[in-house]
Amino acid sequence: MKQLWTGRFKGSLNEQAAALNNSLPFDRRLAAQDVRGSIAWTHALLGAGVLTPGESAKIEQGLGQIGRELADESFAFAPSDEDIHTAVERRLGELIGATAGKLHTGRSRNDQVATDFRMWIVEAEAEMLAEIRKVQASLLARAEKDFGTVMPGYTHLQRAQPILLSHWWLSHFWAFERDAARLREFRSRAAICPLGSGALAGTAFPVDREGLAKELGFDAASPNSLDAVSDRDFAAEFLFAAAMTGVHLSRMADAMILFAASEFGFIELDDAFATGSSLMPQKKNPDLLELARGKSGRLIGLLTGLLAVLKGLPSAYDKDLQEDKPLVFEAADTLATVLPVVRGLLDTLTVRAERMSAALDDGMYATELADYLARKGVPFREAHAAAGKAVRRSIELGIALSKMDAEEFRKIHPALEPDLADAFRLDRALARRNATGGTAPEAVREQMEKAKNILRMA
Amino acid sequence: MKQLWTGRFKGSLNEQAAALNNSLPFDRRLAAQDVRGSIAWTHALLGAGVLTPGESAKIEQGLGQIGRELADESFAFAPSDEDIHTAVERRLGELIGATAGKLHTGRSRNDQVATDFRMWIVEAEAEMLAEIRKVQASLLARAEKDFGTVMPGYTHLQRAQPILLSHWWLSHFWAFERDAARLREFRSRAAICPLGSGALAGTAFPVDREGLAKELGFDAASPNSLDAVSDRDFAAEFLFAAAMTGVHLSRMADAMILFAASEFGFIELDDAFATGSSLMPQKKNPDLLELARGKSGRLIGLLTGLLAVLKGLPSAYDKDLQEDKPLVFEAADTLATVLPVVRGLLDTLTVRAERMSAALDDGMYATELADYLARKGVPFREAHAAAGKAVRRSIELGIALSKMDAEEFRKIHPALEPDLADAFRLDRALARRNATGGTAPEAVREQMEKAKNILRMA
Amino acid sequence: MKQLWTGRFKGSLNEQAAALNNSLPFDRRLAAQDVRGSIAWTHALLGAGVLTPGESAKIEQGLGQIGRELADESFAFAPSDEDIHTAVERRLGELIGATAGKLHTGRSRNDQVATDFRMWIVEAEAEMLAEIRKVQASLLARAEKDFGTVMPGYTHLQRAQPILLSHWWLSHFWAFERDAARLREFRSRAAICPLGSGALAGTAFPVDREGLAKELGFDAASPNSLDAVSDRDFAAEFLFAAAMTGVHLSRMADAMILFAASEFGFIELDDAFATGSSLMPQKKNPDLLELARGKSGRLIGLLTGLLAVLKGLPSAYDKDLQEDKPLVFEAADTLATVLPVVRGLLDTLTVRAERMSAALDDGMYATELADYLARKGVPFREAHAAAGKAVRRSIELGIALSKMDAEEFRKIHPALEPDLADAFRLDRALARRNATGGTAPEAVREQMEKAKNILRMA
Amino acid sequence: MKQLWTGRFKGSLNEQAAALNNSLPFDRRLAAQDVRGSIAWTHALLGAGVLTPGESAKIEQGLGQIGRELADESFAFAPSDEDIHTAVERRLGELIGATAGKLHTGRSRNDQVATDFRMWIVEAEAEMLAEIRKVQASLLARAEKDFGTVMPGYTHLQRAQPILLSHWWLSHFWAFERDAARLREFRSRAAICPLGSGALAGTAFPVDREGLAKELGFDAASPNSLDAVSDRDFAAEFLFAAAMTGVHLSRMADAMILFAASEFGFIELDDAFATGSSLMPQKKNPDLLELARGKSGRLIGLLTGLLAVLKGLPSAYDKDLQEDKPLVFEAADTLATVLPVVRGLLDTLTVRAERMSAALDDGMYATELADYLARKGVPFREAHAAAGKAVRRSIELGIALSKMDAEEFRKIHPALEPDLADAFRLDRALARRNATGGTAPEAVREQMEKAKNILRMA
Repeated sequence: MKQLWTGRFKGSLNEQAAALNNSLPFDRRLAAQDVRGSIAWTHALLGAGVLTPGESAKIEQGLGQIGRELADESFAFAPSDEDIHTAVERRLGELIGATAGKLHTGRSRNDQVATDFRMWIVEAEAEMLAEIRKVQASLLARAEKDFGTVMPGYTHLQRAQPILLSHWWLSHFWAFERDAARLREFRSRAAICPLGSGALAGTAFPVDREGLAKELGFDAASPNSLDAVSDRDFAAEFLFAAAMTGVHLSRMADAMILFAASEFGFIELDDAFATGSSLMPQKKNPDLLELARGKSGRLIGLLTGLLAVLKGLPSAYDKDLQEDKPLVFEAADTLATVLPVVRGLLDTLTVRAERMSAALDDGMYATELADYLARKGVPFREAHAAAGKAVRRSIELGIALSKMDAEEFRKIHPALEPDLADAFRLDRALARRNATGGTAPEAVREQMEKAKNILRMA
Repeated sequence: MKQLWTGRFKGSLNEQAAALNNSLPFDRRLAAQDVRGSIAWTHALLGAGVLTPGESAKIEQGLGQIGRELADESFAFAPSDEDIHTAVERRLGELIGATAGKLHTGRSRNDQVATDFRMWIVEAEAEMLAEIRKVQASLLARAEKDFGTVMPGYTHLQRAQPILLSHWWLSHFWAFERDAARLREFRSRAAICPLGSGALAGTAFPVDREGLAKELGFDAASPNSLDAVSDRDFAAEFLFAAAMTGVHLSRMADAMILFAASEFGFIELDDAFATGSSLMPQKKNPDLLELARGKSGRLIGLLTGLLAVLKGLPSAYDKDLQEDKPLVFEAADTLATVLPVVRGLLDTLTVRAERMSAALDDGMYATELADYLARKGVPFREAHAAAGKAVRRSIELGIALSKMDAEEFRKIHPALEPDLADAFRLDRALARRNATGGTAPEAVREQMEKAKNILRMA
Repeated sequence: MKQLWTGRFKGSLNEQAAALNNSLPFDRRLAAQDVRGSIAWTHALLGAGVLTPGESAKIEQGLGQIGRELADESFAFAPSDEDIHTAVERRLGELIGATAGKLHTGRSRNDQVATDFRMWIVEAEAEMLAEIRKVQASLLARAEKDFGTVMPGYTHLQRAQPILLSHWWLSHFWAFERDAARLREFRSRAAICPLGSGALAGTAFPVDREGLAKELGFDAASPNSLDAVSDRDFAAEFLFAAAMTGVHLSRMADAMILFAASEFGFIELDDAFATGSSLMPQKKNPDLLELARGKSGRLIGLLTGLLAVLKGLPSAYDKDLQEDKPLVFEAADTLATVLPVVRGLLDTLTVRAERMSAALDDGMYATELADYLARKGVPFREAHAAAGKAVRRSIELGIALSKMDAEEFRKIHPALEPDLADAFRLDRALARRNATGGTAPEAVREQMEKAKNILRMA
Repeated sequence: MKQLWTGRFKGSLNEQAAALNNSLPFDRRLAAQDVRGSIAWTHALLGAGVLTPGESAKIEQGLGQIGRELADESFAFAPSDEDIHTAVERRLGELIGATAGKLHTGRSRNDQVATDFRMWIVEAEAEMLAEIRKVQASLLARAEKDFGTVMPGYTHLQRAQPILLSHWWLSHFWAFERDAARLREFRSRAAICPLGSGALAGTAFPVDREGLAKELGFDAASPNSLDAVSDRDFAAEFLFAAAMTGVHLSRMADAMILFAASEFGFIELDDAFATGSSLMPQKKNPDLLELARGKSGRLIGLLTGLLAVLKGLPSAYDKDLQEDKPLVFEAADTLATVLPVVRGLLDTLTVRAERMSAALDDGMYATELADYLARKGVPFREAHAAAGKAVRRSIELGIALSKMDAEEFRKIHPALEPDLADAFRLDRALARRNATGGTAPEAVREQMEKAKNILRMA
C-alpha cells in the first residue's frame, strides 16, 4: 500500500496506523462533490493557463467517467486509497495517464475537502429544511382538521386552562419555524468556497476564485486562506441546528407519549406507527416517538463532540478536523430518518376528543373566577386568593366548583355574585383569550392563516 | 415566610424546599427589565380598560420608585420574595396599597419571566457584539501595524509555507465576523415579546400585544401563547453563539501560547497581560490566554447543560426552565470578562519579527519547487515527488535545500534547471499567492480593506 | 495592587486582566483546607530541617489564628490577594513578620492548590454519600410503609404488568446504591496527596511526603510530581458521579411528576413540598421535582465542561485547570440542595392506593394468559399470539378481557380452558414472579431485607 | 414484513417506521452473546420444568448451529428481523420447528438485550484494559530506555525546571493507571445478570437466576427487575472511562505534537507512524497523534449523548434506551483503534536528547537560586524576589544567568555568595528532587520499580 505523498519517506505506514488514518469509509460519501469540485478546478486551471484546452478536456472526460462509476457503484476502490480524493485521482491516472497528475496543481487536500464538505452540507441543509417544512405542513393540517376540539392545557404537567387542540399543534409549528429560519441563515455561512486556498497560504496560480465559487453554486469565495482550510463553524452550526430540531422533536414526542398513555388516552397511534411487545400481547407501544426522543440526546452529543474537537486545536489545519464528517453525517441521517416518520405518525393518529373533553375538570375555571372578579374591579391578588379559597372549599365539600352553592361563593368573596356562572362556560373562557397568539378560536384561525402563508412562501 | 400563591394551600413550604425553589439569587439580575415590563403592562391594562387612568398613574409611579430603589441598591428584599417578580409586586403593595394587586391582572409569571429574560438577552447580545467588534478592530490594527512581517505558516503544527503575520491576524478576524453575524441573526429570534400570553393560553383581557411589543423594544409579539411561555430556543442559541466565540478565542489563544513559548519566541506578552510564578521567578506565564482557552470549555458545558435540560421536557411550561438563566448569565459574564482582556493583550504584545524570520527554513520552499516544475508543464504529482526527493537529498547531504548543487537537482529531475533559484525567493513565493484570500501582500491589503469596510459599517 | 511574583516584572498587571486572573471569589472556599495544608507543610519543613522549632511554632501559631479569622469571617481580604493561598500568606506576614516568608519554601501553588482541592473533594464525597444514604433510607421506608399496594408497572409508558409499589420504590434504591459504590471507589483515587510535588519536578527539600499525606488524612503520596500537579481526573470523576446521581434523580422525579398529574393521580405531594401558581389558584405544582429533574441537565453540562477543558491541554500544569473548582463546587452544592428536598418530599407524600388499583386494567393480564398457555406446553410464540388475539377480541366486543365468554376464548385457542380464570387473579400474578428480584411479595420482602443490610453496614 | 408481536395489530408497520425501529444494523454485533444467553436460558427453563430434556437439547442444538452460522457469516438475515433477538428466534424456528417457540417463555427482549449487552461490555472492558496495559508497558519501556536524558519541564508551556524524560513518560503511566483502576471497578457494576427480570416485573417461572448469572460469567443476579431492565449506568460508566482515557491520550498526544514540531524538535516520529502532505513534500505530519487527540473530543460527545438520553426518561424501560449501543460500540472501537497505534508510535519514535539538552536555558535555574538562598535561611519570599531580580538583571546585561559576575549577584542579595555556582549544576538540581515522586534519578528509579510491579501483578 503506497500513499501519494511518499516522496520524502523511506519507510511505509504501519498497517494499523494506515487504518486509523484512512477516512475513506466515511468520506466516500463526498464522491459526487469531489468529482464536481475537481471539474470546476480543471476549468480554473484552464483559465489560469496551467492546463491546455486539450488537457482540460481530457481530465474533464476522465472525471465524468469516474462520476458515473461512482454513481452506479462500479467504481473499484484500491487498498492504497486513503480518502476519496486520492481514490479519484488514482482512478483518473488509470483512465487518462500522466495528465491526471496535473489536476492537483495549486490545490491541496485541505481546501479540497473543505470545499467538498461545504457542497455536501449545503445540500443537506436544503433536504433537512424540506423535511421540516413537511412536518410543519402536517401540524398545520392537524390544526385544521382538529379545529374545535378542546383539551386541557398543562403547566408543570398539571391541568391549567382549557385550550384548543389546534393551538397545541400549532405551538410546535412555531418551534420548527425557528429551526427553518436557523437553517436558512446557516446557509449564508456555509455556502462559501474555500477552493483555491491551497494548504493554507492560497494558491500560487492565477485562478479566478470568484468564478470557481459561482460554478460550484457557492455564494462567494472565502476571504482568507488560513481561515478557509481550518474553519469548521459551518459543521458546528449544522449540528446545533440539528440538535435544536432534535430538542423540538423530543419535547413534542414526550408530550405525545403521555397523550398516548392509557391515563391520558388523548390520542391513539395508527398501527402503522406503533409497535408491539415480545412478551405482552396487549401493548401498543409508541416506540417511534421514543426513538425520536432518544435520538435527540445523541444529536446533543454530536454537537458536544465537535465543539470539544474544535476547542482543543490551535488555529490552522490539523488532522483532528477529519472528525467533523462522521458527526455531521450521523446528524443528517438521524433527522432524515426521524422527520418523515414523525410526519407519518402525525398524519395518521386518531384524536380522542371525548377523552380530552372529559379531562376538563372544574378546577381549570379557577382562573376564570379570578378574572371575573378582576373585571369587577377587585385587585387581582385579592381575586386570585378568593378563587383559591373557592377551589379549596369545593374540594372540602366534594362538590364540583361550578356546582357549588351561590351562598358558599358569597361567603368567600362578596363580589362573587350569581352571574359568575358565566365564568364556567367553556366557550366564553376560550373566546376571551382573543389577543394575538391566544387560544380563542378566532385568534387560532388567524394563527393558522399566518402559518399557511409561511408555508406558501417557503 | 408566605408565598403569593397560597390561597389553596394549608401547609407552608418546607424551608429547604423554599431555598431550592427560590430564584431570587439569580433572577434579581432581571430587576430593571421586570420594572420596565410591568410599566408597559400597566399601559396595556389601561388601554384594555382594566385600569383607570388614576390607577395606572399610581402603579407607574410606584414602579418608577421601585426602579430607582433597585438601581441605587436601596431596595430591601424580604424573606418571602421567591423571585424578582414577587419582590417587585410586594414592594409595590407597600408603596401604593391595594391598587398594586391589580398589576398582575391577566398576566402570569410564565409570560412575565420570558419577557424579562428576552429583554435582558437582547441587551446582552448587543454588548457581546460590541466587544467582539473591538477584538476584530484590534486584530485589524495588528494586521496593519505588523504588515510586512513574515512568519512560518503551519499545518499539523509543522512548518508548511511562509505567510504574512497580517494574514494570520486576519484569519481570526473572519472567525469573529461569523460570530458577529450569528449574533445579529439571533436577535431576530430573541426580540419577540411573549407578554400577554398568560400562563399558557393567552390573556383574557383585550390588551394590544403588538403595542406592548413595540413599547418594550421588541420586533413583534409571539404568535402562539403555549410556545411563547415554553420556548427557550433563544437561550440555547445565545449559548451556542457564546460557545463558538469561545472556541475561536480558544484556538487563537492556544496558538498564541505556543508563539509565546521560548521554543517559538514569536511574541512577547506585555507585563500588564502576563503573570509570574510563586516558585519560579524567571517565568512569564500566559495565564490570561490559558484562562481564555479554559473558559471556552466551560462555555461548551453551559450549552450542553441547557440542551440537556430542554430535551428532557414535554412541551409547555415546566419549572425546569428556570435553569436557563444562570447558564446564560454565566456565559455572558465569561465573555464580557475575557474579550476585553484578549483585546488588551493583542494591543500590547510585542512581535519578534526576527524570530519568525529565523524560523523560515528552506524546507518550506518545497512547494515552490513543485510549483516551479508544474509551471514548466510537469504534472504536479511528478513535481511533488521530485520536490520530495530534493528535500530528502538535502537532508542526507546536510545542506540547506536552497544551497544544494545544481547538479544534484538535475539528477533528481531534468526540468530542475538553474533558474529554479527563483523558487527560493521569499518575496516571490508570497507574491504568487495573489488570488483572493491568499497571503500575497497585495491580496492581504485587499483583505484589510474588506475588513475595514465591515467594521465601518457595523 | 501588587502580586507576590513580581520580582522579574516591570509593569503591573492590567486591572481587567487581574480580575480575570483572580480566583479568590471561588477558591476562598478552600480556606480551611489551605490553612490545614500549610500547617502540615510547616511540620514537614521542620522535619526537613528547613525551619527551626521556633520558626515552625511561630508559623503554626499564625496559621492557627488565620484559621480562626477565616472561620468566624473576621479575616480581611486585601485587593492584592489573587487567590486564597496568597491571602493566607500575606496575612501570615502581617501577623508574624518575615518568618512568614519561609512557609512557601519548596512548595508551589501548583501542588498546594491540588492538595487543598483534594482535601475538599474527599470531604464533599463523604457528605454527598451521606445524603444519598438518607434518600435510600427514605425509599426503603416507603417500601416498608406502602407494602401491599399494587400499581401498574409501565414500559414505554404503557400499562404492562401489575407490580408492588414497594418494588417500584426499591428500583430507585438500587440506582442510588450504584452511586454510593462509585463515590466510595472514587475516594481511593481522590485521597492522594500531591503536596511536595513543587511546581512540577518535586520539592528540593528532604520532606517526608508519606508523613505529610498521613497527617492530612490522605491514603498515600502521589507517585509522580508532574502528574500530581496536572491530574484533575478526580474532579472529572466527581462530576461524573454527580451527573449519574442527577440522572437517577431526574428519572425518579420525571416518573413522580407523572404520578402526581391528575390523569394518574397516584400520589399527592404534601403542601410543604409543592407550590402554587401566580395565575391559577387551583394548581398544586411539583416544582421541586421539576427542579431536581432540570438541575440534572446542568450537572451533565458541568461534566462536559470540565472534560472539554481537560481535553484541550498538553500534559503538565496550565492555568486552564483553574476552571475545575467552580464546576465541582456547583455540582456539590446542587446535590446538597436537591437531595434533602427529594428526601423530604418522599417522606411526606401521600399514596393514592385506590387510584393505582383502579388503573390495573384487564389488558395487563395478557401476559398471564400467555404464561397460562405456556405452562400447558403451548410454545410461547403461539401463546403470545393467542393472548394478543384475545385482547383484540375483547376490545372488539367492548368487554373486559377477564369477563369474556369461555366460548370466545376457546375459539381463539383450544387450550384456553375454563381454568384460565386463575390467570386473572392479581395475587397469583404477583406471587408467580418470585424469582430473585421479581415483584412477588415474598421476593420484595427479601429485597427489602437486602437493602436494610446494606444501609446497616454503610 | 411481519414482526413477531403482531397478534393484536391489524395494520402493519409503515416502512420508514420499520427502518427507524430496526436495530439489527448495530445489535447484530451482540449475536454471539445472544446465542450464549439463549442457551443459558434454555438450561434455566429446563431447570424450571418448562422444557423437557428433549426440548432443551433440541433448542440447544439449534442455537449451537445458529452460533456457528453467525460466526462464519453464513447466517442469512431476513427482512422481517427487526433485531438480533428476533433474527435468532426466527432462524431457530426454521431449524427446529415449533419447539423454537418455547424459548422465549418467561423472558422478554427487555431483559434479554440488557443481558447480551452486559456480556458484551464486560468483554470489551477486558480488551480495553489489556490495551491500556500495553500502552503503559510501552511508556515504562521508554522510561527505561531513555533514562538519563534530561529535558525542560514546562508549566504554562514555559520552560520551568529540568526534569528527566523518564519522569515525563511515567507521568502518563500513572494517568493510564487510573483508567485501569476505573475499568476494573466498573466491572463490578457491569457484571450483574438481568436475565429472568422479564419485561419489568420478573419472570413468572421458577428459574434459578443465580445459576443463570453464574453460567453466563456474571458476578450476581440483579436485585430488582424494574431496575434491571432500565439501568444503563454501566453503559454511561463505560463511556466515562473511555472519555477519560481519551482525555489522557489527547493530553499526551498534544504534548508530543509539540515535541515533534521543528521549534521543539525533541522527538522524531518513525516513518511508519507519520504521514506526508499532498501539496508540501517536505512535511512529516503527526496525523496519528492528531487523530488520537481529535477522537477524544468525540468520546466526550458519546458520553454526553448517552447522559442526555438517560436524563430525559422516566424510570422503567423505554425504547430510547436502544440508543445506548451505537454509542458504546463507537467508543470501544475508537479506543481499540487508537491505543495500539499510540503504542506503536511510542515504541518507534526517536528521542533527540541533544535538542532537549539545548533547551535547558539558564533561567530554569532560578528556582535553584531561590532554594540556595532558602537553604541559607533567607525567607523564601525574599529569596524568590532576589532570584527574580537576578533573572531580570541577566536579561538586561544580555549575559546567561550562570555567567553573571559574582559582584552583580552580591548587589542583588548579600547572601548570594560565590558558592552559588552549585545552584547552576544540572546534576545537583535533579538530585535534590529526591522526595517520593520527584524527578531525581534515584526517585525515578523507584518510580519505575513501582510501575513494573503494577504491570507484573496486572
